[in-house]
Amino acid sequence: MTKEKMQPKVQTIWWEESPEPTICMLDQSLLPHQVVYLRHTHEQQVADAIKALKVRGAPVIGITAAFGIALAFSRLFRVQAESLSTTDIQKHLVTVCELFCHTRPTAVNLFAAVEHMQHCAKTVLREQGSLQYLAQKLYHEAQSMADEDFDACLKMGAYGVDLIADGDILLTHCNAGTLATVGWGTGLAPIYAAHRAGKRIHIFVDETRPVLQGARLTAWELQQEGIPLTLITDNMAGHFMRHGGIKAVFVGADRITCNGDVANKIGTYSLAVLAHAHHIPFYVVAPRSTIDLSLPSGEHIPIEQRDPREVTFIHDQHIAPVGVKAANPAFDVTPHMYVSAIITDMGIARPPYSTTLHSLYKANKSVKM
Amino acid sequence: MTKEKMQPKVQTIWWEESPEPTICMLDQSLLPHQVVYLRHTHEQQVADAIKALKVRGAPVIGITAAFGIALAFSRLFRVQAESLSTTDIQKHLVTVCELFCHTRPTAVNLFAAVEHMQHCAKTVLREQGSLQYLAQKLYHEAQSMADEDFDACLKMGAYGVDLIADGDILLTHCNAGTLATVGWGTGLAPIYAAHRAGKRIHIFVDETRPVLQGARLTAWELQQEGIPLTLITDNMAGHFMRHGGIKAVFVGADRITCNGDVANKIGTYSLAVLAHAHHIPFYVVAPRSTIDLSLPSGEHIPIEQRDPREVTFIHDQHIAPVGVKAANPAFDVTPHMYVSAIITDMGIARPPYSTTLHSLYKANKSVKM
Repeated sequence: MTKEKMQPKVQTIWWEESPEPTICMLDQSLLPHQVVYLRHTHEQQVADAIKALKVRGAPVIGITAAFGIALAFSRLFRVQAESLSTTDIQKHLVTVCELFCHTRPTAVNLFAAVEHMQHCAKTVLREQGSLQYLAQKLYHEAQSMADEDFDACLKMGAYGVDLIADGDILLTHCNAGTLATVGWGTGLAPIYAAHRAGKRIHIFVDETRPVLQGARLTAWELQQEGIPLTLITDNMAGHFMRHGGIKAVFVGADRITCNGDVANKIGTYSLAVLAHAHHIPFYVVAPRSTIDLSLPSGEHIPIEQRDPREVTFIHDQHIAPVGVKAANPAFDVTPHMYVSAIITDMGIARPPYSTTLHSLYKANKSVKM
Repeated sequence: MTKEKMQPKVQTIWWEESPEPTICMLDQSLLPHQVVYLRHTHEQQVADAIKALKVRGAPVIGITAAFGIALAFSRLFRVQAESLSTTDIQKHLVTVCELFCHTRPTAVNLFAAVEHMQHCAKTVLREQGSLQYLAQKLYHEAQSMADEDFDACLKMGAYGVDLIADGDILLTHCNAGTLATVGWGTGLAPIYAAHRAGKRIHIFVDETRPVLQGARLTAWELQQEGIPLTLITDNMAGHFMRHGGIKAVFVGADRITCNGDVANKIGTYSLAVLAHAHHIPFYVVAPRSTIDLSLPSGEHIPIEQRDPREVTFIHDQHIAPVGVKAANPAFDVTPHMYVSAIITDMGIARPPYSTTLHSLYKANKSVKM
């Protein structure tokens, strides 16, 4: 299949060069009821879009910031090519990087992307590169990050597709799809690959309280792709594992530790235990950047506690009594014993993960992603 | 403890005799944000209240209908005591019973209550009882149904309280409390009993999508009673079973079959499997009227499929893409292997239920509830 044919029907973010450098992005904050593409020609607009959650999903936030920094220098070159000293450009770099670092406080991919772009710019400046060269270099760097993400999604899809048979009914949680990446996503990548390969599949989609990413985002993007789905409340998963013929569960991950423990959206652990009880394979799909071999196990992952109002309110509606206490852990940790396989862009790891994840890294050490 | 001391802080429905016969009820459709008590002096108002879900919960719907029928004849006696023939009264009986039968289409307790009241009225009329006597008799019958429900709740509480220790953290699903009965409820009865007995307990309350009975009703009534609680989304249950120190799960039931299989609100089955995986006791609390010894197992219980809009909408907010398919089974069936004990008003049944439930019935055959 050509790369063009592998494009998802939904594109989250991309760069256009003419008539002027522009970052185009789907406004995810309006989904699923309005499909609006934004065109940004100023880095401030891009930063505001990240801040306003118009773009979300860890990988895509990092890529957006990288494109935003590239946009800043392309614009700078167009506006005042002749008048800037290296010191001025260095100052501008600091300002722009700070702009993006202040958009989302806890987005690891964001900081990594900003740091990478900053490092790249400093190298160019140290080598006395022109502003035009710097702008081009930063654009190519951002685009290559996007391409790497796209390719990683394709690879996860290619590795995972063999785990899906024609006619399978599958279940997914949260949004680990196109909307979180520039490609097919992570948890959904094998599902897209299976669909494109002509396998007839049906997806049960957990609505994923409290923020409803399943209902709002996953249901929408599968609908765009023409993949048949049934939306369910999270508490129906067990019932449909017992009676709905579910053959496998596919989820993404926020972080995977050395031993194969998986931190992911709250509710993932319950699903994994239910899948285990029903002898249904539970697959975690994530690129190598999600795997943190420095952490021995999931106990070492701190659990982010979010605003309880996400539980007691739905949009503006207060659904609980005033003054009631609510818990809102953002994610949970699934112990490796419940994970049937970890599908990465380097290949598939099976238990024992403490051995197999390392082996995948070793085998792929020389290969650039 | 005196019976007065055993009154829950929230009263769902009661009868007042003066200044004129009145049915007082809490308008549950406004909970948790407004606490409004309605006073109805006409049976039509009572029927409308059932229809508009101002009163809900199977046991309390039956009792409300019984009180409504009694109210109809008390009112009739006051308005036109002298002018009615037995035939007129019989016609009135048919009209009133039909009025209540048309309020909710699938409420088994409702039909049983109406049938019981009708049977009782026919007996009085056959024996040529006066309209005054008929009105009194019907009121006493309705009140005695309410008293029986109240007593059954107390008994379930008394049997279940020994399963709760001082300091326990417990989990419940949906609303199986005061708001569904005239007493302490079913699933919550042991919890109220433990609290009244001075045991310090903390309750995790599943919000219970799609209709959010946990967030709207259970959280509210526990708050009224002063029982500490934490509201969670349904998909957090596994996480808190693993990390939150949950010692037992208490739920109600819609129907229990001969072998101990339990039909209850959707999500109950997932909870039961999760509790089993965490070695946490899973208790079902229900009065004898919920146990259907004529059904051999849960496979014979048809699953009501409700409007998918309950899943795709929350109140008036459309949370999913237009045209998306959603599933909405109203309840699920938990196989008896996941049920640690069934707490009834006749005592506690432990596995094997096909023997122990029968034994409870036999031992209680001569005892009026």
